[in-house]
Amino acid sequence: MKKKKKAVVLLSGGLDSATCLAIARAKFDPTCLCIDYGQRHRVELQRAENVARSMKVRDVRVVKLDLRAIGGSALTADIAVPKNRSSKKIGSTGIPVTYVPARNTVFLGLAIGLCEVIGATDVFIGVNAVDYSGYPDCRPEFIRSFEKTAQLGTKAGVQGAKLKVHAPLSGLSKAEIIRLGLKHGVDYAQTHSCYDPVNGAACGRCDSCVLRRKGFEEAGVKDPTRYAT
Amino acid sequence: MKKKKKAVVLLSGGLDSATCLAIARAKFDPTCLCIDYGQRHRVELQRAENVARSMKVRDVRVVKLDLRAIGGSALTADIAVPKNRSSKKIGSTGIPVTYVPARNTVFLGLAIGLCEVIGATDVFIGVNAVDYSGYPDCRPEFIRSFEKTAQLGTKAGVQGAKLKVHAPLSGLSKAEIIRLGLKHGVDYAQTHSCYDPVNGAACGRCDSCVLRRKGFEEAGVKDPTRYAT
Repeated sequence: MKKKKKAVVLLSGGLDSATCLAIARAKFDPTCLCIDYGQRHRVELQRAENVARSMKVRDVRVVKLDLRAIGGSALTADIAVPKNRSSKKIGSTGIPVTYVPARNTVFLGLAIGLCEVIGATDVFIGVNAVDYSGYPDCRPEFIRSFEKTAQLGTKAGVQGAKLKVHAPLSGLSKAEIIRLGLKHGVDYAQTHSCYDPVNGAACGRCDSCVLRRKGFEEAGVKDPTRYAT
Repeated sequence: MKKKKKAVVLLSGGLDSATCLAIARAKFDPTCLCIDYGQRHRVELQRAENVARSMKVRDVRVVKLDLRAIGGSALTADIAVPKNRSSKKIGSTGIPVTYVPARNTVFLGLAIGLCEVIGATDVFIGVNAVDYSGYPDCRPEFIRSFEKTAQLGTKAGVQGAKLKVHAPLSGLSKAEIIRLGLKHGVDYAQTHSCYDPVNGAACGRCDSCVLRRKGFEEAGVKDPTRYAT
């Protein structure tokens, strides 16, 4: 069997990144990159490690980055997480306070750096621009621009390697992502989406929970999440 | 007096970033961003704080980021720092092992994120592409591309703010940077350039020391650095 090419997969422990990892590993040998950035829902990191283990990923890196020193987001500062917003409102009424300033620029930078170290040229990120919160750094035009910047700003890039950022979920609805993940064997019970967990259980009311619940409903699949409400 | 606009200045504690800060504060109210990334020459962080204090900067942020979990550089892994290379060789024989994968992509990402939080649109970075080590992420084409990516990947950018990355030292020789810094009142005795310090003193032999020494010589200015050799 031909040896698979290496790739770096950004893994948060959420539904999207777990699906993205399952897609990536069908064609690549994944190294997972998890970022411990001081997120309110730090429980997702343990879930990320569980997801990676269940998919038999051999190389999982956890990088600590103290984004609380920068703040400015409900996920990294003392700002309330919005609750009980309708799924129609999410993503259509401006960028919410859960936006973490320039997060994907930083995370993709770290992923591209790790690519150089392990000799990979491919990064996978589970961004989605359909059932999403309207974060600017989840949109395809950002991803394409980042790819060009990485090409110019890395040793690998200037030496001729073609760096590629894959965003395979970009145009899919949450229901489509779930169906695709199930085909690839994702166990969604292991994933965590909630921004504001209550004793480890999902709050059921933040934007991330609302989009997740709607996704399972629309996919006609039982939602394995333990919700507090 | 008109209130100055805010700007974020990436400050390492080195000669270039100290000069860059001095230039920035002539027109802007600077917030300094220092990154504690597990660098071998961690002593530079204390120097950065001293430099910022001497220039009366009120807001200095130190962000911890464990790049040792990624490694791949003589500055963040157990790889020897090259010594005794001639200044002609530095920058002309490929990218040296002191290159930190995608470092400026990550650092600029953090700086742009901080801009959004403090309500600034300008970032200053002391990159230089003349007397430098040949790092790809110090070149003007990278900086311009990053600026475009930041515009697309941030809340501030998509809401219409014009984000700008200033690299005022980009086309200057080290001697020109030193002369410019002295005009702006930089005390170079406070700065630290060495990649591999010996008990706090500069080694005098790494690429960074070689370029610094040559800069002071060419500028005809006494080098205030304490060298071990």
